[in-house]
Amino acid sequence: MSCLFCSIVAGDIPCSKIYEDESVFAFLDIGPVSEGHTLVVPKVHAENLQAGSAPDAEALMAAVYRIAPSIMKAVGADGYNLGMNHGECAGQDVMHTHLHIMPRKNGVSRSFTKTHPSMEELTATAEKIRAELQNLANVT
Amino acid sequence: MSCLFCSIVAGDIPCSKIYEDESVFAFLDIGPVSEGHTLVVPKVHAENLQAGSAPDAEALMAAVYRIAPSIMKAVGADGYNLGMNHGECAGQDVMHTHLHIMPRKNGVSRSFTKTHPSMEELTATAEKIRAELQNLANVT
Repeated sequence: MSCLFCSIVAGDIPCSKIYEDESVFAFLDIGPVSEGHTLVVPKVHAENLQAGSAPDAEALMAAVYRIAPSIMKAVGADGYNLGMNHGECAGQDVMHTHLHIMPRKNGVSRSFTKTHPSMEELTATAEKIRAELQNLANVT
Repeated sequence: MSCLFCSIVAGDIPCSKIYEDESVFAFLDIGPVSEGHTLVVPKVHAENLQAGSAPDAEALMAAVYRIAPSIMKAVGADGYNLGMNHGECAGQDVMHTHLHIMPRKNGVSRSFTKTHPSMEELTATAEKIRAELQNLANVT
């Protein structure tokens, strides 16, 4: 059975990619609750965290640790909500493990309502984030 | 300045502990949104994920990977929501990194409203979870 996120990782479905390492792939949610709303997924398919490997679980958080500051900087955020829904009862919609990084700003109420930016807007946001990640790579 | 979670980790403030390893400490939230609502914190104080070390970030998810199945089994849950609030703008209330594991059940709507179980109820839930973790340890 085809998996949406496996197709995105494979490049068969386009996305606004922001980061990739040997274990993890990160791209913008197409229905973001805030600008820069990112999904972090393991490259190896697993329906949920427990169905995958322990190293893949750790790699997800290693990626959040690495990329969240650049996401915040790119969109002018002051913090973020991290979320993962395990199972349909928890609201999991795509059955491939994914962590949500949802940037938040001081003085702006936290919305969990999806928005529908254009592909151009998503591309522009992804470019800003990748530029921040590149700046970080150049410094360290 | 004193930190609530550092005091809990140190044993100076009682808690319903369910798990501990060299990096991580896990205990029941005293205002659970569902039975078994667990907080996972790094033992080393850090205001948020990025203020701590990368290994401590990974250790948080390693602990979720290890303990979430036992939490689900103990309370009869079918899934869980994972959440972390980074910064006041994201709703962070205690300024010591913490991941929420919120068990969810099929057919039960997801509440994020705090409940106020008695200490006896929390202790009983923690005992059930620890028993499941012990069963797992005996099998593996």
